[in-house]
Amino acid sequence: MYKLVLIRHGESTWNLENRFTGWTDVDLTPTGVEQAKSAGRLLKEAGYDFDIAYTSVLKRAVWTLWHALDQMDRTWLPVRHAWRLNERHYGGLQGLNKADMAKQYGDEQVLIWRRSYDTPPPALEPTDPRSERSDVRYAKLDPNDIPLTECLKDTVARVLPFWNETVAPAIQSGQRVLIAAHGNSIRALVKYLDGIADDAIVGVNIPNGIPLVYELDANLKPIKSYYLGDAEAAAKAAAAVANQGKA
Amino acid sequence: MYKLVLIRHGESTWNLENRFTGWTDVDLTPTGVEQAKSAGRLLKEAGYDFDIAYTSVLKRAVWTLWHALDQMDRTWLPVRHAWRLNERHYGGLQGLNKADMAKQYGDEQVLIWRRSYDTPPPALEPTDPRSERSDVRYAKLDPNDIPLTECLKDTVARVLPFWNETVAPAIQSGQRVLIAAHGNSIRALVKYLDGIADDAIVGVNIPNGIPLVYELDANLKPIKSYYLGDAEAAAKAAAAVANQGKA
Repeated sequence: MYKLVLIRHGESTWNLENRFTGWTDVDLTPTGVEQAKSAGRLLKEAGYDFDIAYTSVLKRAVWTLWHALDQMDRTWLPVRHAWRLNERHYGGLQGLNKADMAKQYGDEQVLIWRRSYDTPPPALEPTDPRSERSDVRYAKLDPNDIPLTECLKDTVARVLPFWNETVAPAIQSGQRVLIAAHGNSIRALVKYLDGIADDAIVGVNIPNGIPLVYELDANLKPIKSYYLGDAEAAAKAAAAVANQGKA
Repeated sequence: MYKLVLIRHGESTWNLENRFTGWTDVDLTPTGVEQAKSAGRLLKEAGYDFDIAYTSVLKRAVWTLWHALDQMDRTWLPVRHAWRLNERHYGGLQGLNKADMAKQYGDEQVLIWRRSYDTPPPALEPTDPRSERSDVRYAKLDPNDIPLTECLKDTVARVLPFWNETVAPAIQSGQRVLIAAHGNSIRALVKYLDGIADDAIVGVNIPNGIPLVYELDANLKPIKSYYLGDAEAAAKAAAAVANQGKA
């Protein structure tokens, strides 16, 4: 049996400001730093240890990992960055306020943008200053791999190659894997691992900074999964995520 | 022409307490964090950029790198940890106060322990609780590679394979390399790069948290080297390092 641990980054400045973030590279808030440290302490107290960690190329996930590793006394652990673990790209909504958009377009439209499986938000223009096409961290990618918007289906499609080619082989070779990523890249993994239907994933929300443990069989099928620490706190934090897009 | 940048970690808790540190894994002080950030800002302001960073498996160097990368907006850069970049092992002196030792054994004996090229301090017993032989981060090493004490000559001998097998090929393949390491692992590199004689390296001191730039020719021979930022501040900081072992 294998264990895999997923952590959504701690609260970011744009979580706090209730803005659509996507691939915009914003910092953790002081609360987010504390959540990240708390995740590391929970893992250490529960006796977890790891051989390798994966994270995105966005600093809110990277710093969450670094703070968690420090609490576990594992700052020396190998860390690999993957753009495929980035948050879902939010297209033309990146930077805009979720509640403002709900006032302007209605709660239902915002819920569709936030949680529809296959309807992406309006795309960014490639020349939009918010587009990441000129960002040096993506310079080696095929420009067509750099999204201008994504629905969750698109995020699943670009996260899964990383799972299949990198993470799954690492786990099956016996490496204990920690992943620090984002609400929607984690939802993509959860959907795949748990075989959640396209119309049911809308109800799955990932709280910030609480380790999500998967126990996996030899074929990496989940035996069970659970949040570490206070279950009620995790449920409340997930509910708060669900409510962010309301006017 | 290539550029290589070396940074000694910022002030650690044991630098502050004037204790021999070696492989003991102590934290940065708040001053050390500021020095690390300042190193990153200096590099960014001077237009430096990197493709890969190397550091030790000791958190004072790792955190120095992380803070510097964050200031450069490069938290996503690949980072590789190498035990061969660790500080010189201080043997039985690890944890003891430098000035206390100078009072007890004399300034001259402490200078020999600190700066003799080929006389190591007294060795730790392998069973000493301060020995790293049971530390999980070194579990995959040949136990004989885990030192019980080191003189600088020993440190040079274990740093150079990492230089030759990893860093030099990376630089010559065109990667821009940043190394965050320790006073003596950096002195080992400086001695090798600049061809400093065994009896002259005693006078070379590396200040905390100030980027040291090497401009290298195609064969990685130094064309010139210099500290970024205020040259006088770098010289004062290096002199302060030289004076640490006096009663």
